[in-house]
Amino acid sequence: MRNIKLIIEYDGTDFCGWQVQTKNKDKESIQKVIQGALKIILKETVKLTGSGRTDSGVHARGQVANFKTGSDISLKKLQASLNGILPRQIRIKKAANVPLDFNARFDATSKLYRYTILNNTCGSPFYERFAYFIPRALDLKKMKIASGYFLGRHNFNNFCVKDKTKEGSKVRNIKKISIRKTGELINIDVAANGFLHNMVRRIAGVLIQAGLKKMSPYDVKKSLHTKGNLPVKWTAPSLGLCLMKVDYS
Amino acid sequence: MRNIKLIIEYDGTDFCGWQVQTKNKDKESIQKVIQGALKIILKETVKLTGSGRTDSGVHARGQVANFKTGSDISLKKLQASLNGILPRQIRIKKAANVPLDFNARFDATSKLYRYTILNNTCGSPFYERFAYFIPRALDLKKMKIASGYFLGRHNFNNFCVKDKTKEGSKVRNIKKISIRKTGELINIDVAANGFLHNMVRRIAGVLIQAGLKKMSPYDVKKSLHTKGNLPVKWTAPSLGLCLMKVDYS
Repeated sequence: MRNIKLIIEYDGTDFCGWQVQTKNKDKESIQKVIQGALKIILKETVKLTGSGRTDSGVHARGQVANFKTGSDISLKKLQASLNGILPRQIRIKKAANVPLDFNARFDATSKLYRYTILNNTCGSPFYERFAYFIPRALDLKKMKIASGYFLGRHNFNNFCVKDKTKEGSKVRNIKKISIRKTGELINIDVAANGFLHNMVRRIAGVLIQAGLKKMSPYDVKKSLHTKGNLPVKWTAPSLGLCLMKVDYS
Repeated sequence: MRNIKLIIEYDGTDFCGWQVQTKNKDKESIQKVIQGALKIILKETVKLTGSGRTDSGVHARGQVANFKTGSDISLKKLQASLNGILPRQIRIKKAANVPLDFNARFDATSKLYRYTILNNTCGSPFYERFAYFIPRALDLKKMKIASGYFLGRHNFNNFCVKDKTKEGSKVRNIKKISIRKTGELINIDVAANGFLHNMVRRIAGVLIQAGLKKMSPYDVKKSLHTKGNLPVKWTAPSLGLCLMKVDYS
């Protein structure tokens, strides 16, 4: 038996997310599509464990997943065969042998997400699928001040989708948060030991409110520490979100 | 009468190029689509003069064009109306009043083109429309040495499509050429006082041959100075090419 780790890139636009979601039954899940390709190549049904779910429309440049197989296929052939079968929106960047006890989900120590905003007056065909277009002026300084309040360990109860089936701790540790403008693009990078459902999109949404001067940086601080839901409409749309990297150490 | 300059961005994938081409009668030209939108807004037929033609599939981030009109529409309204009517693949980045004698084609003093290569083993959904995917290793050092031979004034007779209707000088002055690798992307930037038909794509094609070690940098030098056609198959595909900037001074 072997344990194989895949590093996966995808354009999530046309998928229902990493895992099958009840809301989007007309679209396929990335996990299912890759499992289907693996079945063709390995002639056995494998269970692909991802580092975590990404929502419908969310992209990845460094999703990590693993599966166990009895096959002795070479890693090079496995990668080439997968990329030959998979739709072009899903690419296998790397395949590697890992110890049998490696688990892409439970062993992840940190994840880096990037939220991308296109901030100009007219939009751009070059970023249409991969950035959230905001035509209004954004105050970057206010966004940066507001972002600082998220650093460190906090209860992100206001920054997640309420799910009664998951009553675990809402405390997460944000190790890094940065906002960088390059030309017309604004990248919000957030690294943490783990993320709640919609957490990055809600953080990005609140930072956008700060940029639009609809919230002061102080309001952002309060939103984190005061009990009470944030307006769902502030959740930044999925197309701007990308899972960049998963760390294991 | 006013003269208005537009700065235009487009994803050229689904168009037959800036101007109508006899080869691609099923696709529309960018010039024609913008002229159509201008007719709706201004209620008059205008002639849009571009800085130059871009081929079918070639993109632009800074195409420049001008047209004359009797309309007193504000520039802000003109830009917003155009972006409202135009397909999302074409965006008007700016509209400005210019002197009546300004001509986007004849007054251009320099143009900057960028050729983008995606150089990894598996491709990427993020650059599918905008970069030429080369899965084999490219020797960047050899490409850089070879690129140096193009700098300055040369007769680019071997680096253009032969067109008997245009017998003008084939001498052009390359002011800048650079090759830069950022992650998996290789950008070849070429600035010149003007370009012949397919010139950048042929230069990029030859530099790729040098990168693949199918030509030595010395062969590249010879290809520029020895009379004789280059294989057409070396012409790099249009999807990697983008008109970045047009200068007027």
